[in-house]
Amino acid sequence: MDQALPENIAVIGPGLIGGSLLLGLRQRHPAASIRAWVRRSEAVSELQKIDPAIAASTDLKTVVAGAGLIVLCTPVASMPAIAKQLATMPLEPGCIITDAGSVKSPVVTALEGIFSKTSASFIGSHPMAGSERSGISASRAKLFDGSVCILTPTLFTSDKALAITRKFWSLLGCRILEMQPEEHDRKIARISHLPHLAAIAVTLAALRRDKSAADCAGNGFRDVTRIASGDPELWTGIISQNRAEIISALKDAHDITGDLLAIISSEDDSALLRLLQEARSLRNVAGPV
Amino acid sequence: MDQALPENIAVIGPGLIGGSLLLGLRQRHPAASIRAWVRRSEAVSELQKIDPAIAASTDLKTVVAGAGLIVLCTPVASMPAIAKQLATMPLEPGCIITDAGSVKSPVVTALEGIFSKTSASFIGSHPMAGSERSGISASRAKLFDGSVCILTPTLFTSDKALAITRKFWSLLGCRILEMQPEEHDRKIARISHLPHLAAIAVTLAALRRDKSAADCAGNGFRDVTRIASGDPELWTGIISQNRAEIISALKDAHDITGDLLAIISSEDDSALLRLLQEARSLRNVAGPV
Repeated sequence: MDQALPENIAVIGPGLIGGSLLLGLRQRHPAASIRAWVRRSEAVSELQKIDPAIAASTDLKTVVAGAGLIVLCTPVASMPAIAKQLATMPLEPGCIITDAGSVKSPVVTALEGIFSKTSASFIGSHPMAGSERSGISASRAKLFDGSVCILTPTLFTSDKALAITRKFWSLLGCRILEMQPEEHDRKIARISHLPHLAAIAVTLAALRRDKSAADCAGNGFRDVTRIASGDPELWTGIISQNRAEIISALKDAHDITGDLLAIISSEDDSALLRLLQEARSLRNVAGPV
Repeated sequence: MDQALPENIAVIGPGLIGGSLLLGLRQRHPAASIRAWVRRSEAVSELQKIDPAIAASTDLKTVVAGAGLIVLCTPVASMPAIAKQLATMPLEPGCIITDAGSVKSPVVTALEGIFSKTSASFIGSHPMAGSERSGISASRAKLFDGSVCILTPTLFTSDKALAITRKFWSLLGCRILEMQPEEHDRKIARISHLPHLAAIAVTLAALRRDKSAADCAGNGFRDVTRIASGDPELWTGIISQNRAEIISALKDAHDITGDLLAIISSEDDSALLRLLQEARSLRNVAGPV
C-alpha cells in the first residue's frame, strides 16, 4: 500500500534520538510542518536556535493538534503516562503514533490498549541507533543512516500504520526489520542490553582497583566500554522494562565468563582457542566492523 | 641524553604491528635503511610491492647485520626462540633490541637473560595500538598516531637503550609511559586482555542461541564485540603468557556480573543506578571516546 508521509509530524521529547529525528526530517522532508514537544521551557529556545522552522512548545495539545504522525521519544518508562495524556486530546483522525524505545513488549501492550479507545493507532518502532552521548546537543541528521529500525506490528496494527511507519524510518535512512514485540525484546536483550551491561562490568573490573590503568587504554578498551558512558537513569529504566530477558542473557554471559575462568585456570589452551574461534566466527556473522 | 635514531633498523615478523612500523618508518625516517625479516618467502614479494625500499628477506642473519635497532614483532610466545637465534649472530656492537608484545614480564625476563651474554641490550615496549584485523595487508603508517607506548625498563636497561627506544616510538606518534614489567602486565590484564575476553563472552552469549539476533545489531554491539574478531591463535598465546593477572581481572568481572544479576533479579533499581553511575564516572577517567 503506497501511503504518503503525513505533512504534519510531531516529535515528543527530543533528546539525542528525537533531536536527530527533527534534524533528519528537516533535511529529507522539508515541506512538512515539524513540531516538537519539550518538557523544559529553555529547550524551546535551544530548538529555535538549532532550526527556527521547528515549532517547539511545552504545550503537548498544541504540538500534536493536526499531526498525522506522532513519534514518542521519551524514556520507555514514561510512555504510558504521555500516551494517556494524548488519548484525552483532540488528535487528527487516523493519526499514527509510534515510538523509538529500546523495549517493545510492555510499551506496545500498554499503548495499544490506551489508543484502542481513540481513532489513533499505535505501532512500536526501535531504531538501532544511538550514542553514549545524550541530549539534543548530541543530535545529528544522519544518526539513523544505515542503521536497522525494528517495527513490531501486532494483529491490531493497520496496514496504513505499518506502511507509513516503514516509509518514515526509510526516509531517515533505516533498513526496516519487522518482528513481534516479544521477539524484539528477546533479541535486543542479547544484542544491545547485554553489551551495555558488559561495558559496565568491564569498566568496573578494569578501573575500580586502580584508576591509573586508564592511562594505558587503547582503542580496544575505549570501544568495549564506550557505552558505559551512557545515561545511567535512561539505562536503569530500559533494564527494568526488559528484566526477564536481560536476566536470561546475563546468566549466559556469567556462565561463559565462568567457563573462561575455568579454562584459563586449568591451562587448557586448546579449549581456549576453540572458544575464541567460535566467537570469531559468530562475530563475523554480524557483518563488517 | 640525546641519542640519534639508528640509520639501520630491522623489523622482525611484520604482521599488522610490524608492517605498520615499516610504513611509519618509511614516512618519518626516510633516510634510514629499513629491513624486515619475514617467515614466508611469499611475504618478501608482498613487501616489495608495498615499498621496494624495504629490504625484506627470510634470512634473519642478513636482515639484522649492521642494524642499530631491532624490533621484534612476532607473537609473544615465539620471542625467546627468535632471541636465542639472534644471540648467536654477529650483531652490531651496542645494538638495541625491543619488541611490541602485549605481555612484558616473561618476555623481559627471558630476553634480558638471553642478550646479557651479547653486546646487544633488550628493553620491552608495548604500543597500545592494534586492530581486530591482522597481517601486513592491514598495516597503516598512522596506526600508532596518538596511542600510548609503554616502555618497561629495568635495572639492567642502559640509558642509551631507553633514550633511543623513546625516540623511536615518539617518532611514530606515540606518547610514552614507563613502568615495571609486572605493573604493565597487571594493568594491561585489566585494560586490554579483560576487554578482549569480555568481547568474546558477549559475542557467545548474544549469538550462540540465535544467530539471527545479529541482524538487529547496532553500533553498541559492534563496538563492544569488534575485537572478538581478532586472531584466536595470537590471543590464546597472549592469555597464556599473562595467566595469573588475567585470572585476577576476570574473577573481578565475573563477580561484578554476578552482582548485576542479583541486583537486576531483586529489582533493586537504585543499586543498579548507583553501579551505572560509578561505571560512567570511571569510564570518563579514560578520556574522550
